Amino acid sequence: MRGKLIAEDGEKTYAVIFATGDEAAAGLLDFAKEHRLAGSHFTAIGGFSRAILGYFDPNIKEYKKIPIDEQVEVLSLAGDIAVKDGAPIVHAHVVVGKSDGTAWGGHLIEGHVRPTLEVMLTESPAHLQRHYDPETGLTMIRL
Amino acid sequence: MRGKLIAEDGEKTYAVIFATGDEAAAGLLDFAKEHRLAGSHFTAIGGFSRAILGYFDPNIKEYKKIPIDEQVEVLSLAGDIAVKDGAPIVHAHVVVGKSDGTAWGGHLIEGHVRPTLEVMLTESPAHLQRHYDPETGLTMIRL
Amino acid sequence: MRGKLIAEDGEKTYAVIFATGDEAAAGLLDFAKEHRLAGSHFTAIGGFSRAILGYFDPNIKEYKKIPIDEQVEVLSLAGDIAVKDGAPIVHAHVVVGKSDGTAWGGHLIEGHVRPTLEVMLTESPAHLQRHYDPETGLTMIRL
Repeated sequence: MRGKLIAEDGEKTYAVIFATGDEAAAGLLDFAKEHRLAGSHFTAIGGFSRAILGYFDPNIKEYKKIPIDEQVEVLSLAGDIAVKDGAPIVHAHVVVGKSDGTAWGGHLIEGHVRPTLEVMLTESPAHLQRHYDPETGLTMIRL
Repeated sequence: MRGKLIAEDGEKTYAVIFATGDEAAAGLLDFAKEHRLAGSHFTAIGGFSRAILGYFDPNIKEYKKIPIDEQVEVLSLAGDIAVKDGAPIVHAHVVVGKSDGTAWGGHLIEGHVRPTLEVMLTESPAHLQRHYDPETGLTMIRL
Repeated sequence: MRGKLIAEDGEKTYAVIFATGDEAAAGLLDFAKEHRLAGSHFTAIGGFSRAILGYFDPNIKEYKKIPIDEQVEVLSLAGDIAVKDGAPIVHAHVVVGKSDGTAWGGHLIEGHVRPTLEVMLTESPAHLQRHYDPETGLTMIRL
């Protein structure tokens, strides 16, 4: 475990509001590219009409896809933005709630917004860097 | 999807601590009114003795109520505060954990605190505005 | 419910990155001690190879242990750091996702990281104090 001070001041906070039909994973990446975000974290709530969640299986080093084919509440969407080879990468995990109140979740692969997704994003002046880790097959933040 | 810078500096952070018997949704609204919060977001953990969760059904444009009639851990409470017609509105989603470890969640309608709820709230200098959206029947943040 | 302004400026943000084999509860406490954190809150996402969750039963004033003996996604880890008798105490709740997409959660007792845990931590200049509460048997933040 390593820690690094990434802001003493100079942080910026953005509200990012998605509307019906927007796809959250692609939209967050677009926002990161447009604003050149290189060290940010966010939380969000809202709703999805459908989503694809991922479960990373470390044995096969692949994401198993878990489709959610119904309207769900987005109970918690949390994640961060770092850069790899100069381009931003969004890493987000989500918890969703079905109509019976049960909670489901995973890595956010696709989230189709309905009716809204309200993201509060904090940008730090310091960059976070992701590097490919051959052991896991993932790109991971290295401080 | 639209984004807006809501703080470069001048943010304030509040700790808001609820005790046994407090109701979280009303308490957050009271706190927002008392401190004239108009653009804030928060996360919290704690416990509820009982709660009422909501699932928004976009077909009938109404919240289905999901009662939780037992002591639960508040695993994640996340949301934001915006204003509509000059008055603050709190929008919060919650994930709770039952004694068997299963997670449940929804829109926070009522959450009766036991023994505590520890809310960390960040206020931005910019206001967030909610407007009634006739298509969904909800008030949504418009940037 | 009581609220207290804990920062107007002077907040610091840390990225704390855990690697495979790290235990998250002990690691967060180590980080808090090393950096003398006395009023902080954090959110995190990542993965655990196994974990022990807790459910606080207010009737017997004890945590029931809920073992999670499989690789899970850490969908949301949220909590705060306060001090009691001069030493930091970490309070964290976690939501995890199993390979079938079901979400589980509780108080974080142990979380064995695999492959990473990405924690974003905000330190406030004001201290938060925990005090032993004989009625519940817990130490709780008092403002």
